[in-house]
Amino acid sequence: MNRTDTPVTVIGLGLMGRALAGAFLKAGHPTTVWNRTASKADQLVAEGARLAPTVGDALRAGSLAIICVTDYQTVHALLDASDVELDGTTLINLTSGDSAQARETARWVEQRGAHYLDGAIMAIPPTIGTAEAVILHSGPQTNFEAHKSTLDALGTVTHLGADHGLASLYDVAGLAMMWSVLNAWLQGTALLRTAGVDAASYAPFARQVAAGVAEWLPGYAKQIDSGSFPAEVATLETDARAMTHLIEESEAAGVNAELPKLFKAMADRSIAAGHGGEQYPVLIEEFGKPRTD
Amino acid sequence: MNRTDTPVTVIGLGLMGRALAGAFLKAGHPTTVWNRTASKADQLVAEGARLAPTVGDALRAGSLAIICVTDYQTVHALLDASDVELDGTTLINLTSGDSAQARETARWVEQRGAHYLDGAIMAIPPTIGTAEAVILHSGPQTNFEAHKSTLDALGTVTHLGADHGLASLYDVAGLAMMWSVLNAWLQGTALLRTAGVDAASYAPFARQVAAGVAEWLPGYAKQIDSGSFPAEVATLETDARAMTHLIEESEAAGVNAELPKLFKAMADRSIAAGHGGEQYPVLIEEFGKPRTD
Ligand SMILES: NC(=O)c1ccc[n+]([C@@H]2O[C@H](COP(=O)([O-])OP(=O)(O)OC[C@H]3O[C@@H](n4cnc5c(N)ncnc54)[C@H](OP(=O)(O)O)[C@@H]3O)[C@@H](O)[C@H]2O)c1
Ligand SMILES: NC(=O)c1ccc[n+]([C@@H]2O[C@H](COP(=O)([O-])OP(=O)(O)OC[C@H]3O[C@@H](n4cnc5c(N)ncnc54)[C@H](OP(=O)(O)O)[C@@H]3O)[C@@H](O)[C@H]2O)c1
Repeated sequence: MNRTDTPVTVIGLGLMGRALAGAFLKAGHPTTVWNRTASKADQLVAEGARLAPTVGDALRAGSLAIICVTDYQTVHALLDASDVELDGTTLINLTSGDSAQARETARWVEQRGAHYLDGAIMAIPPTIGTAEAVILHSGPQTNFEAHKSTLDALGTVTHLGADHGLASLYDVAGLAMMWSVLNAWLQGTALLRTAGVDAASYAPFARQVAAGVAEWLPGYAKQIDSGSFPAEVATLETDARAMTHLIEESEAAGVNAELPKLFKAMADRSIAAGHGGEQYPVLIEEFGKPRTD
Repeated sequence: MNRTDTPVTVIGLGLMGRALAGAFLKAGHPTTVWNRTASKADQLVAEGARLAPTVGDALRAGSLAIICVTDYQTVHALLDASDVELDGTTLINLTSGDSAQARETARWVEQRGAHYLDGAIMAIPPTIGTAEAVILHSGPQTNFEAHKSTLDALGTVTHLGADHGLASLYDVAGLAMMWSVLNAWLQGTALLRTAGVDAASYAPFARQVAAGVAEWLPGYAKQIDSGSFPAEVATLETDARAMTHLIEESEAAGVNAELPKLFKAMADRSIAAGHGGEQYPVLIEEFGKPRTD
């Protein structure tokens, strides 16, 4: 069910807000927009959007509003305007922020009678409106279900759970994975370049390994949830020895070894704590606590 | 063409050597084996292998020999025995070691008239003989081509290039990717656990992100090979700001932040060097040089 006659309001027409409003318009939704700098609405108005004179007016156009501005301070400032009436509105905040801000904003707008979802956009503006654009939502499931058919216009929309902080947490966790894959690839590329292998020749190998290891994660997750880490495939000590090879190869080749050294330091701490004969996911105990020494 | 009548010799019957010899036997190759502790050959002999009394005798059984023992010192010690004649033999060394050891061993055995390939096994013994077992080879391509149909019995065998050091370099680069994906997943799992999300619930998301980012690598490799890093998707400064979110979320949740802090430190150095407006792969300049300050 895609009720394209559902009116939608979009507050904030930066690069991302314009992409969001454009996707709603393209899907046929009556779309009302507001932006501090009104001229950024010109193209959207030409495509059929209505430009509201105030945030309060924009919100009165319907019962579903998306806000996507620079930061949460701006969200608060805009919703604090005297003509803003949130009672009965479903507000979806796709502004980037942290989980504490998301939870606090949820309390604030829910006290004013709004239904609230926090969201995180794991995509760039040109992909909005395609399945490639992953948009995470967290907050009461009923809020999500009520509007999913409308949100579908934006991309692949998912609901993570009732805790409003989850979208931000998944967002940064996903970014950690992104940087990790990129950094490992850069480490390997730097190493192989010293042997005359260009980046294009090495990349398919790195891609294959990353995709292969990704497949292990659901299985390894079972070890974490059960708190038991039998060395079915290899012991942490075997990994630590191989880490030494990586460090030595990197140093011999004259490339940066900080990343492998951090891997080894964390593995060594876990081995010192008695986990050398267990399997890699036992490192969750190191990741799960702040560095103390 | 899989000439299963080609005789094969396997030196070293540890966990891995036994799996290798077993795969050759299963494919129908006449298989001669040797091990310091002869009793480890019992099962293989029962399956049809011939146990040779010395390394030299084992090598005389045919023109293709695989050696897989603990380390390169052992390889040297075994091949130094007085009855060992390497002239005309193709020796494939699947012992783990570094690229310098591989290149040095190549020189040593080639001087004695052998054809040499160095190799690295990216697999565990139970998968040997299946497509899942990836075995990398480096050295003269003709050596590989001459025996590929026999080596196919071991798994997915590939040839990386003429430089004997490549198998070791790809091996450690692949391991760097493996640990990176696992560590990023552990970082995310640790974070999400503080919000009550179990590892099994989070793992599919981490898998999807890792597999998705893996697809970017061939495209990003073009930036590295061309030495030009236009910010088509995001600038390094945008990444660095998001890294701060990851660090703050980790610290607020009481989980380890060393990994995100290292990511940020490397990005900050690159930004300080003037690359903040370029795209992430510009970090190759940081990875490609030893940490100096
Ligand atoms: N672009 C991306 O690739 C991307 C990807 C994922 C997430 N995001 C997130 O999406 C959000 C918006 O990003 P963007 O790319 O659209 O940023 P942007 O192009 O810089 O736009 C910022 C928006 O915030 C508004 N704004 C800022 N301060 C304001 C204030 N004091 N009062 C009223 N309005 C104010 C701006 O209004 P004016 O037009 O009047 O300046 C503009 O609409 C950010 O949280 C960003 O992290 C962006
Ligand atoms: N197992 C894996 O999952 C795996 C995966 C990838 C790569 N590898 C690599 O494969 C190689 C072998 O590993 P493995 O698992 O088979 O190890 P292993 O079970 O410990 O076997 C070691 C082998 O080396 C022999 N050896 C050691 N020192 C010797 C000496 N001084 N003289 C004669 N023989 C000696 C042993 O003979 P004895 O039987 O007489 O002790 C045995 O055949 C290693 O380089 C390892 O890194 C293993």
